[in-house]
Amino acid sequence: MRAILGNDIAIQAARAGHTRPWPDGAILAKVVWKADPKTNWKTALAPGKFVHAEFIFKDARRWAGNGTGWGWARWVGLEQKPYGKDAGFSQECISCHTPVKGTDWVFTVPARFPGLSR
Amino acid sequence: MRAILGNDIAIQAARAGHTRPWPDGAILAKVVWKADPKTNWKTALAPGKFVHAEFIFKDARRWAGNGTGWGWARWVGLEQKPYGKDAGFSQECISCHTPVKGTDWVFTVPARFPGLSR
Repeated sequence: MRAILGNDIAIQAARAGHTRPWPDGAILAKVVWKADPKTNWKTALAPGKFVHAEFIFKDARRWAGNGTGWGWARWVGLEQKPYGKDAGFSQECISCHTPVKGTDWVFTVPARFPGLSR
Repeated sequence: MRAILGNDIAIQAARAGHTRPWPDGAILAKVVWKADPKTNWKTALAPGKFVHAEFIFKDARRWAGNGTGWGWARWVGLEQKPYGKDAGFSQECISCHTPVKGTDWVFTVPARFPGLSR
C-alpha cells in the first residue's frame, strides 16, 4: 500500500501538467506499508507494518550521470536505515522505473480531484 | 479507494492520541475514488473515477442533537453536489459509523510513520 507525496514544486508542476520533464527542485516521495485488514472493517485494507520511504529529487544537471536527472533514495523501516552499500544502489531503482522512462521515470499520475483540471 | 485527511487540529490530536473524544475543531475528510488498474503497472490499483468527498466536523455542543458531537457532510462527484435532501441525511452516515461509536465514531487510526510513536 503506497502513498505518493510531493513537495510544493512537485505539486505545482503536477497540477500544471509540467511533468515531461519535471522541473528541477521537484521531490516525490513514496511511502510504503504492508496492507492489513482493518480491525473494525474486515473487508477493507489499511496501512499496517511500515516498510520504507523512498524519494526522488529532480536536478537535471546534478544527476545527469545516472541517465535520469533524478537522485534516488530509500530509507528502510521505522528506524529509517539507508538502503544500499554504495551509490550504485540507484541502478536498482532505475531498472524498475525504466518502463516509465517516457514519463520522466515517474509511474504516478495525479488522482482526479474536484476543482483540478487534471 | 480512500484517503483520510485531517486539519491541523485533527492531525495534532491523532499524533498525541487525544481521539477519545476528538477535540472540538477537529475536521476529518474522506476522499473516495474508484480503484482502477494502473495503466503502466497492471497489477497495481490506483485512484480512478472520483466518487465523493465526505467530512466530519467535531463540535460537541453544536452537534449534540444528533447524538455524535460531529457534523456530517458529503459532496458527490467532481461537481461536488451536496448529498441529501434535508438535514436528516446525517442519520445515514451515523448508522454506518455506529460500529465505531466507541472510538468517537471514527474508523481510522493513524498509519505508522517513522518518528511518530503512534
